Amino acid sequence: MSPAIPAFETSPSQALLVGPDIDLASIDSRATPGFTGGKKEGRLKLDAENAELSELQEKLFAESRFGSELSLLVVLQAMDTAGKGGIVRHVVGAVDPQGVKHYAFKTPTAAEKRHDFLWRIKKQLPGPGMIGVFDRSHYEDVLIQRVRGFAEPPVIEERYGLIRDFEASLVESGTRIIKVMLHISPEEQKARLAERLERKDKHWKYNPGDLDERQLWDEYQAAYQLAIERTSTAEAPWFVVPADRKWYARMAVQQLIIDALQDMQLSWPKAHFDVEAEQARIARS
Amino acid sequence: MSPAIPAFETSPSQALLVGPDIDLASIDSRATPGFTGGKKEGRLKLDAENAELSELQEKLFAESRFGSELSLLVVLQAMDTAGKGGIVRHVVGAVDPQGVKHYAFKTPTAAEKRHDFLWRIKKQLPGPGMIGVFDRSHYEDVLIQRVRGFAEPPVIEERYGLIRDFEASLVESGTRIIKVMLHISPEEQKARLAERLERKDKHWKYNPGDLDERQLWDEYQAAYQLAIERTSTAEAPWFVVPADRKWYARMAVQQLIIDALQDMQLSWPKAHFDVEAEQARIARS
Repeated sequence: MSPAIPAFETSPSQALLVGPDIDLASIDSRATPGFTGGKKEGRLKLDAENAELSELQEKLFAESRFGSELSLLVVLQAMDTAGKGGIVRHVVGAVDPQGVKHYAFKTPTAAEKRHDFLWRIKKQLPGPGMIGVFDRSHYEDVLIQRVRGFAEPPVIEERYGLIRDFEASLVESGTRIIKVMLHISPEEQKARLAERLERKDKHWKYNPGDLDERQLWDEYQAAYQLAIERTSTAEAPWFVVPADRKWYARMAVQQLIIDALQDMQLSWPKAHFDVEAEQARIARS
Repeated sequence: MSPAIPAFETSPSQALLVGPDIDLASIDSRATPGFTGGKKEGRLKLDAENAELSELQEKLFAESRFGSELSLLVVLQAMDTAGKGGIVRHVVGAVDPQGVKHYAFKTPTAAEKRHDFLWRIKKQLPGPGMIGVFDRSHYEDVLIQRVRGFAEPPVIEERYGLIRDFEASLVESGTRIIKVMLHISPEEQKARLAERLERKDKHWKYNPGDLDERQLWDEYQAAYQLAIERTSTAEAPWFVVPADRKWYARMAVQQLIIDALQDMQLSWPKAHFDVEAEQARIARS
């Protein structure tokens, strides 16, 4: 018998859920809500849950082949170095690439800027049966754009409502949405930036411009606070994941995905053909 | 010390390379060219090489952030059940999703049919720094289309040249191309189709239409033979990978990818900033 998988005492779907009454500043970025184990147990759990995640993903995919319109969209937002890349690599990376549509949104191109801010987002949505992962998203349009003043305040204000409507329509058409903010402390970011400079194989990840963003820490936190206040809805909830401990953030996001998929009540599609007749055909072939 | 990784005696890049003089019918689909170990050693090797593959992929990606145009395109073609999905899951799946662009080509849509056959292919090419994986490809346009008579013989004939030119231009612009045919026997396919019917969680993968294609086995083999004859070039080579043994096919394709990336002479980009000055800025921040 393999050792028991450490369990969450409270599911991240409950422990990390935030609503319009969020107080971001009061959330401890080093905490491990719902989990009493340490790094060793956390890593064990991350590995152990991959089988469950894989089976759920395959069912989601299989159902789409028989007409299901269901899909899952995971939105990842965070300050630099908070660990979006690690989530993609270690959580999403354990899922069959055939069932994942990952997209990293960069600074909008000139072509993208000519359209409304949701235009480029809509092009990257997961199709039926897929798990979509957005590394950054339409939330940049109310985060960096607010902090940097790239758009006027009334425009930003209008976007919250457009985002709510957009996400509601996605949910309506079968896409489950999980919005994740990886929450780190400025001290942890400092340590991680310094580490990138210590290792030559990490230099490529370092961008001097990241330090300029870092100077605006408080403004970004305020923009996140506001964005979450305005766009927390029952159908497209936000989860704030403490991320100073990478192992916790990874297992928590994995569990959020598993919980969402389990809640979809997926099952293996029934054969739409006569199994015995097909077995006979194969035997003759 | 960890146990030594079993080695290929002859690299798959040499052992599996075919040219215009290919004789597909003479290639044993149960063989394990270049490797004397068995399933156990093969699986050990597959796991052990993931670290090398990951580092190479990350270098490819990192270089693209500093202006490199290099990318890799892996084309997977095969008869049904030959194991394309397993390659994607177990070989490609070990690579960071951020560095992989996987695309499965299906029957062309009405919109795609209104364009030339390479139009939809060009839209899915990997960008700089990416490993592109085509699950089926433009080769369907000279395989099923030939066998099923969806295009006239002179049109098919013209396509070989168009494919050669297209691939040459890709290579010219920095995309390394590996073309893989997973080669199984009709007996092995029969066993795999039967297995899909035995397990209820595999029924969704079974399509009665696959048996119709199976009836055309010899015609498909002839179409592959011809396609490989006409499109084997030094810059975009074909590799025929014996695939009756899944463990061999996976480790062989993994090694083909590793060999291609190693041949690109990738390295970690040098810092384009003053490391000490940035360290001082971080300390002050």
